[in-house]
Formats: sequence, structure tokens, C-alpha cells
Amino acid sequence: MKNRIVTISRQFGSGGRTIGRMVAEKLGIPCYDHELIEKIAEESGFAKEYVQDKSEDATYGSRFINAFLSSRVYDGLSPQDYLWSVQSKVILDLAQKGPCVIVGRCADYILRNTADCLRVFIHADFEKRAERIVKLYGETDDSPEKRLREKDKRRSVYYHFYTEMEWGDACNYDIALDSGVFGIEKCVELIAGLY
Amino acid sequence: MKNRIVTISRQFGSGGRTIGRMVAEKLGIPCYDHELIEKIAEESGFAKEYVQDKSEDATYGSRFINAFLSSRVYDGLSPQDYLWSVQSKVILDLAQKGPCVIVGRCADYILRNTADCLRVFIHADFEKRAERIVKLYGETDDSPEKRLREKDKRRSVYYHFYTEMEWGDACNYDIALDSGVFGIEKCVELIAGLY
Repeated sequence: MKNRIVTISRQFGSGGRTIGRMVAEKLGIPCYDHELIEKIAEESGFAKEYVQDKSEDATYGSRFINAFLSSRVYDGLSPQDYLWSVQSKVILDLAQKGPCVIVGRCADYILRNTADCLRVFIHADFEKRAERIVKLYGETDDSPEKRLREKDKRRSVYYHFYTEMEWGDACNYDIALDSGVFGIEKCVELIAGLY
Repeated sequence: MKNRIVTISRQFGSGGRTIGRMVAEKLGIPCYDHELIEKIAEESGFAKEYVQDKSEDATYGSRFINAFLSSRVYDGLSPQDYLWSVQSKVILDLAQKGPCVIVGRCADYILRNTADCLRVFIHADFEKRAERIVKLYGETDDSPEKRLREKDKRRSVYYHFYTEMEWGDACNYDIALDSGVFGIEKCVELIAGLY
């Protein structure tokens, strides 16, 4: 029997990560988010910081140029494609082990044929997300709007490149929720209730 | 105080209309779907069939060409733009009257500033929708796949033209649900529960 997995894709600042943790806690199953980065770093040999930066966001500029500029190849792959292959393997292995929540990293796509997934997308409006990232990560030289736009863009490009699907297209998820409208607690309750 | 309205956008064959009716029944409020066509036909002077065909789907070919070819103008507008203006007015009036469910016709966009909306999007995978439209509307010379693709395309183009937003983009809705995954009853329960 396929394991039941909750995959959570989320807009930056929407609280998707927190929702993932709380859903996992409520269901008594593990949640993989930062743990995923550590596992991928371990298996790939890349630094955690590199994995964190590259494992779900497109790099600035063309990925093709980045790949061209990169002199090293890993198993004949560009660093990012190699990272993608390790990441896919890590996520597939975790899904084999038992039920869990996986936050981000295209897990919905990676597990499309091998696990019984509840595919969730969490979003919120600009204002609510801006407030949240300033509260969580502090102010920077860039405006919250710029940070949100850039992060969303990078995530969306990355997702599209590896999955050929549109990030945030409702049809790619079983349920999509506006955490700004319903609040974190209600989203957790809804998702855990559907599991 | 703003009236509480449920707007339901839906893919063709996803059961969104049925869900709308059942939510309204559960909440004890009116549901406007076919009734909307009658009201718009009455106010605009167009035939019901014309309203049904043009009130949420783009016509084949370029709308600009259609508008160019159309010799009559209504209040200085093309027939479709005139229909849009009447439709907007009808929907705004209904939302003033009291709480209700409105199915389709860009009501989420039309009411964005004037009502307290629970904006819902209902979708399902191709297979489930194909099965549903054949059961509901029978076979035609075109394959169910072709019928679904064309209807989705027309709805999406229409929505984008009048709202400048992407139809089916999760971010445009408070909640988006896959009725094929959860079933009609569960969707009704979730939406009514969130109202």
C-alpha cells in the first residue's frame, strides 16, 4: 500500500511551513522541511547553504548560462540538475518509509506516481505576507514587496523548469487555501481533517 | 455591513454548479446560476441562448474581430461588452439584496470591492470530468476531451479578458478544491463550513 503523504507547496511568507509542522504534529507523523536540506546536503556533498539556496528556487539569470559557467559536472549533470536528482531520490526514499508531511521542493510532482499524496498549496495576499516576512526575518535593504516578488518568481521558474507545470495553478493541487483569509489554525484543521 | 456571498468558479464538468446548489441549500440562501442568465437576458434584451453562450465564454476567433464584424452597438459598446456591463450590474444588484451563492460569470471579480465573498474554485482531472459531462450532457461528435479543452479555453480567455487575472490561479480564490479527489458532498461540507 502506498504511504499517505501531505505535500505543502507555498508562497513565500504565507505560513505554509508553519502549517506543515502543525499538521504533522496533529497527525502524529514527521514533517520534513529543514531536515530535507540536511539529508540532501549529506547525500549530495553540497553545503547546506548551497542546498537551501538552490533546491527550490531558480538562480538569477539563465540556468543554462549558470550551467555553462559551471566547470564541474556531477554524474554528467550540471550542479543544479545533480541536486534535483539527489533531492528526488531523498524525497522518494522518505515517502517509502512512512506517512509524513513534506514542505516544498516539488514533492507533489516528485511523488506523483509513487505515493498517495494530499497535495496542498498555501498562499496569501501581498500585504499579509509582507507583514509576516518582516516579523519573521526582519527588515532588509530590499522592500518586503521586492523580496516577495523575487522569491515567488524564483520558485515559480524552478517549479516550471523541473515539472513543466505551473506553480500555483489550482489544478495541480487537491486543495489550495488562502492562509491570510482563514488563518493558520483553520488551515491546519482543514488539512488534517482531509488527510 | 457587506453581504456574505459565495462565488463559485469551476472547470467544465467539475460539478461546481451542483456544489453551488447544494451549498446554498445547506446554508438556506439562494443560488444564482441559470436564474442569472434569465435576469441578464431580461435586462439586456438579448435572447437567453445568446446570454448563455456569451456570458462567460470567449467566442471563437478574436473578440476584436467579432466586435468589428458586429454592426450594432449598444450604448456605444460591442454586444459582448454590453453584455458584460449588464451582467456586472445584475450581479452587483443581487449581492446588495442579501447573502447568496453565485455560480460562474466572474462574480468573484465583479464583487471584489463590494461584497464579503468566499471565493471558491472547483476543478477535477480530465478523466473524472469527461465521465461527468458524458453522463450529464450525453455524447456528441466531439470527444469529451475536445469538449473539455475548448470550454476551459473559452472560459479562461473570457475571464482573463475582463478581469486581467488568470482563471484557475489558486491565488485568486480563498479555497480551491479538486472535486474528483474529495467528492461533491465533501466539497459542499467544506465550503458551507467555511462560510
